[in-house]
Amino acid sequence: MARTGRRPGNQDTREAILAAARTAFAERGFDGASIRQIASTAGVDPALVHHYFGAKDQLFLATMNAPIDPGELLPPVFEPGIDGVGERLVRAFLGIWDSPAGTPVVALVRSAMQHDWSARMLREFLVSQILRRAARALDLDPAEAPKRAALVASQMIGIGILRYILKLEPLASMPPEEVVSNVAPTIQRYLADPLPG
Amino acid sequence: MARTGRRPGNQDTREAILAAARTAFAERGFDGASIRQIASTAGVDPALVHHYFGAKDQLFLATMNAPIDPGELLPPVFEPGIDGVGERLVRAFLGIWDSPAGTPVVALVRSAMQHDWSARMLREFLVSQILRRAARALDLDPAEAPKRAALVASQMIGIGILRYILKLEPLASMPPEEVVSNVAPTIQRYLADPLPG
Repeated sequence: MARTGRRPGNQDTREAILAAARTAFAERGFDGASIRQIASTAGVDPALVHHYFGAKDQLFLATMNAPIDPGELLPPVFEPGIDGVGERLVRAFLGIWDSPAGTPVVALVRSAMQHDWSARMLREFLVSQILRRAARALDLDPAEAPKRAALVASQMIGIGILRYILKLEPLASMPPEEVVSNVAPTIQRYLADPLPG
Repeated sequence: MARTGRRPGNQDTREAILAAARTAFAERGFDGASIRQIASTAGVDPALVHHYFGAKDQLFLATMNAPIDPGELLPPVFEPGIDGVGERLVRAFLGIWDSPAGTPVVALVRSAMQHDWSARMLREFLVSQILRRAARALDLDPAEAPKRAALVASQMIGIGILRYILKLEPLASMPPEEVVSNVAPTIQRYLADPLPG
């Protein structure tokens, strides 16, 4: 990729790009924000944005200080197909919350409960980085995919909040595999069974 | 009930009782806090606490400014028995969030994500006011009841957060009865089916 930035590559430039990107994503959402417009706001060439941050997905993750990259974590969950996806998803999710990346994830969720801006960023993150990947990888009917994804998200975020933030027992200290065996059938139903209504 | 308070009944006395109760519930939990000790901290007779606030349940709800009284709302959900309880519970829950009481409930959940004190109060509220009532009314096996209740709470709080705080579509604008038909089978399974693990 050509390095054609009008301004020299330095920390200030990176920060200027991130600041422009945060505003753009918060105001227009993931789909509405464009690299060209972010570069223009930051006073740099679009190629420099690509050079520093890669594609729009990566720039978005950088603006959120996202501690995980769903592009790396999700393929092993979804690519084996619909059979057993509930189990793999719950296990992967608990693996993240239980790892060092769990702390910033908790901070992100807490912040989203408090500030509309954070709520919007978290919503965009869920939709653009997780739910769409799931829909594509599992080849879900596009008419149903957003509903299935939202139902899955509701169960997963509820587990995260009760287990790691409110620390409700016995969920807070339940062995991960017991959480998996209790919750996986719910996720499997939301993703694979016929939806009512 | 005899009115034997050592101090005259007035706004200051009520506030003193509430302040002592908040501290007691936050430090010792619902079960550990006693009316006698709360009265002593507030410098009043225990009978005065009963006179102003009724039983410990009501005093607890008063300290939280709880916008709902589970003692009134839950019997119609649980008393008809285990059949259809998932559907009745989801419908009642959406009815609260969609009503004027929904706004303070959202504020309560938001606050619990932010402050350990609020998180503890919300946890005590869930356990003492909702989950135990459900276990009693449905005659759940005491060895399994806390786990079933925590799983139900995880799904319900997740729906509340995605629908009313993060406003994730299509869940945010889904007709209540469609939420009921999608989520009720999950609640029914958590309450009534054999648990794995």
